[in-house]
Amino acid sequence: MAKDKGSQTKATRRPKAENPRGFRDYFGAEVTERKTMLDRIAEVYHLFGFDPLETPAVETVEALGKFLPDVDRPNDGVFAWQDEGDWLALRYDMTAPLARVAAQFRNDLPSPYRRYAMGPVWRNEKPGPGRFRQFYQCDADTVGSASVAADAEICAMLSDTLETLGIPRGDYVVRVNDRKVLNGVMEVAGVLDPADPDRFASERGIVLRAIDKIDRLGEAGVRALLGEGRRDESGDFTKGAGLGSEQADAVMGFMAARRDSGAATVARLRELVGASAIGLEGVGELEQIAELLDAQGYGADRVMIDPAVVRGLGYYTGPVFEAELTFEILDEKGRPRQFGSVAGGGRYDDLVKRFTGQTVPATGVSIGVDRLLAALRAKGRIGGETVGPVIVTVMDRERLADCQTMVAELRNAGIRAEVYLGNPKNFGNQLKYADKRNSPVAVIQGSDERARGVVQLKDLYLGAKIAAEASLEEWKSQPAQIELPRGDLVQGVRGILGRY
Amino acid sequence: MAKDKGSQTKATRRPKAENPRGFRDYFGAEVTERKTMLDRIAEVYHLFGFDPLETPAVETVEALGKFLPDVDRPNDGVFAWQDEGDWLALRYDMTAPLARVAAQFRNDLPSPYRRYAMGPVWRNEKPGPGRFRQFYQCDADTVGSASVAADAEICAMLSDTLETLGIPRGDYVVRVNDRKVLNGVMEVAGVLDPADPDRFASERGIVLRAIDKIDRLGEAGVRALLGEGRRDESGDFTKGAGLGSEQADAVMGFMAARRDSGAATVARLRELVGASAIGLEGVGELEQIAELLDAQGYGADRVMIDPAVVRGLGYYTGPVFEAELTFEILDEKGRPRQFGSVAGGGRYDDLVKRFTGQTVPATGVSIGVDRLLAALRAKGRIGGETVGPVIVTVMDRERLADCQTMVAELRNAGIRAEVYLGNPKNFGNQLKYADKRNSPVAVIQGSDERARGVVQLKDLYLGAKIAAEASLEEWKSQPAQIELPRGDLVQGVRGILGRY
Repeated sequence: MAKDKGSQTKATRRPKAENPRGFRDYFGAEVTERKTMLDRIAEVYHLFGFDPLETPAVETVEALGKFLPDVDRPNDGVFAWQDEGDWLALRYDMTAPLARVAAQFRNDLPSPYRRYAMGPVWRNEKPGPGRFRQFYQCDADTVGSASVAADAEICAMLSDTLETLGIPRGDYVVRVNDRKVLNGVMEVAGVLDPADPDRFASERGIVLRAIDKIDRLGEAGVRALLGEGRRDESGDFTKGAGLGSEQADAVMGFMAARRDSGAATVARLRELVGASAIGLEGVGELEQIAELLDAQGYGADRVMIDPAVVRGLGYYTGPVFEAELTFEILDEKGRPRQFGSVAGGGRYDDLVKRFTGQTVPATGVSIGVDRLLAALRAKGRIGGETVGPVIVTVMDRERLADCQTMVAELRNAGIRAEVYLGNPKNFGNQLKYADKRNSPVAVIQGSDERARGVVQLKDLYLGAKIAAEASLEEWKSQPAQIELPRGDLVQGVRGILGRY
Repeated sequence: MAKDKGSQTKATRRPKAENPRGFRDYFGAEVTERKTMLDRIAEVYHLFGFDPLETPAVETVEALGKFLPDVDRPNDGVFAWQDEGDWLALRYDMTAPLARVAAQFRNDLPSPYRRYAMGPVWRNEKPGPGRFRQFYQCDADTVGSASVAADAEICAMLSDTLETLGIPRGDYVVRVNDRKVLNGVMEVAGVLDPADPDRFASERGIVLRAIDKIDRLGEAGVRALLGEGRRDESGDFTKGAGLGSEQADAVMGFMAARRDSGAATVARLRELVGASAIGLEGVGELEQIAELLDAQGYGADRVMIDPAVVRGLGYYTGPVFEAELTFEILDEKGRPRQFGSVAGGGRYDDLVKRFTGQTVPATGVSIGVDRLLAALRAKGRIGGETVGPVIVTVMDRERLADCQTMVAELRNAGIRAEVYLGNPKNFGNQLKYADKRNSPVAVIQGSDERARGVVQLKDLYLGAKIAAEASLEEWKSQPAQIELPRGDLVQGVRGILGRY
């Protein structure tokens, strides 16, 4: 706008009524459906002993850790601005604020600290179809417990959460892996040197990214990336990790290590990590997680050990998990595909250390609220038509007070109702309004009805059905409209509402 | 931070674990109490036919209307930043985004459009004690209805909302006034010229501010400000509006115009506005509002006409309202004072016009969520101790799976419970943790109890009471700890929970 400064048109130009790029509004049922889902999730989290935490949307860039030393402005990816010398930014996830809180209130919080957080986060990224720059996250984390029982608990809670939301057993699975096992395999594959952890970092990055692409590239594609590299259909060449054939076998074997039972998978992983100390530690953790889950009644049909789970974020240090919906939906081209991941997380033992210098073990999960909502909609679990309010129409502007009396009676009986508040002159507009609100009943009382002490009730759903389907005879008989004594208003409206 | 650039210390300096100035975190019950309150308010709004709307936190500065033509940066008061040439900002209230939505979706929304919105807003203002730069607002507005029935409905809904939240009739009152009546009085007082509405704007500002200060300055102080001016205790002089004695009488008479019934107040106001056309229009509106509220059963004990209500915002164009809590609380110095205003609003017919050029009538209310929470706390309606989760203690790290089985049984029975996930070595730490969580019951099973097939349940509330009050005999008899068969775990825990 600054470039317009001083131009004559500016003073008279009207502002545009638009969201900023990548932001959107949510109306009616979109709001209540999400709220209902978050409420149910919160109930499960509460049952597991987690407490709510609400941090502000705004953090210092310093606390978020998104300030690069070489640039004057914060890193891309966050919305940031300068406030009297300090850089502030909108939170981009719920984990960074939790790390700040865990450090700031370390002397006051119970330890371990189980907390959940739900709310919007903001990403300064290029928006795309279905990709917004503000979206909801719903996280649960345990800070201060080094025990894998904390990881097992998060997996159990995730399983319960999905079932509570109406996703039946068999339609989802929580997959668990361990970064330490992965590191063990890296060691066996010769791209991790325990004596010099920073060495081979670039090769390990290539291996991780290759594993993550197995669904898209297939075995041969991943093998090419583990070795010299891969040329795609367009002719572009991606450099590989340079593993020899045996080393690549170790990695490929790891990804195919899943067996029918957790115990069998663990046994296979133990073979694969060989003498790697870190690998064996990881295998032991997975074994313990499987045992703890078993003790709580979570079998492999709900939570399973799956070595193919990687999870992108570099900061995970132990167990990682991912909840996947296994039912098929139709994609935009009408082809069936698995719905895929709706939640993920893992153990991150170093986040609080940034602030205090002390390692604080932590583990947690983040549910992709909007993806999960989309899944529930795809399964028809939510998203039915919402029943609108009863509309008391206005036949005579001078008798508005009578309408208010009727609407107050309905509300006092717990029935959602409103008086038509637009210009009442055109009755057709009132019915159009009722239709737009998906109103089930219109209440009508003209001077004739008032004189006779009656009201008319119009069943708008039945009326719409008849208008679409009925014969002339049915149409004339007006079964959708009934007349009853004024004193029976509430009872009559209840009767029609009972049909829907 | 930029000034540190290049300094050696920077790379090693740890970030501060702090909120930005004026922001805070909300923990546990602080979050759930607010949520419960907002849920109840939403139920009332829903019953009245209002639909939820959730707009994003971020708007263009242009849409918010906070960009002054003479400056490069947005006006003070908002948090704003530049994003690829556009200025974006955090919303500072819920009304500006509603105006944008009403303009943007004017062809799709029902008209009238009743919507409610609840969530945080942000103000780039100097924080103070109890004054934060992020706080909650909870608004309901009707856009597209010129009828004062819409204003009356908002007042009725506000009254229902307060009662639903546990504020009994008599402890609150919704006061209603009308800007048009005020303008009529201004006309009589000679500081409003209908033929030249911009004339005397500065004098009217002084009159409005003087009326708003009646509680603090008393009648004499206000009279001084209406006349030549007022010198305060410190000797500072505030210039007055320069009204003559008769003109000042008109304004003072207006403020004292409240009578026992709405009808009597309206009659008095009609005398005061004399021949002013705008004043008579306003009196007519107040009369109609009182009549509509009466028809719905809202008497003057709930909603009353009160000419002393002004409301600061310049944009109100008709009825204005304010909900006040009338009970006394003790202020920070222990003196009783009325709690005061917790919600306010009014009619603003020009906000949407900024975007479309067309006047769209609108009216609405905003509830000060945090003030209302404070009021409910002051009245003891919320804020009791929260019962924490049952804690299953860990006596033997190797038997963690047994603990998980117990906790799963409790949760499956709907009892909030968790296993202690810290280092179990020190049992005292486990009880300290249970205490910090305000846990009612600790479950204990050592190897001896396991061998005998029993568990110990410790009633922690009773235990704390005994520790504080009991004689040595009572203390030794340990009534707070019971032993029961392992199979009776759920039943036993339920028994203790039933005591609280």
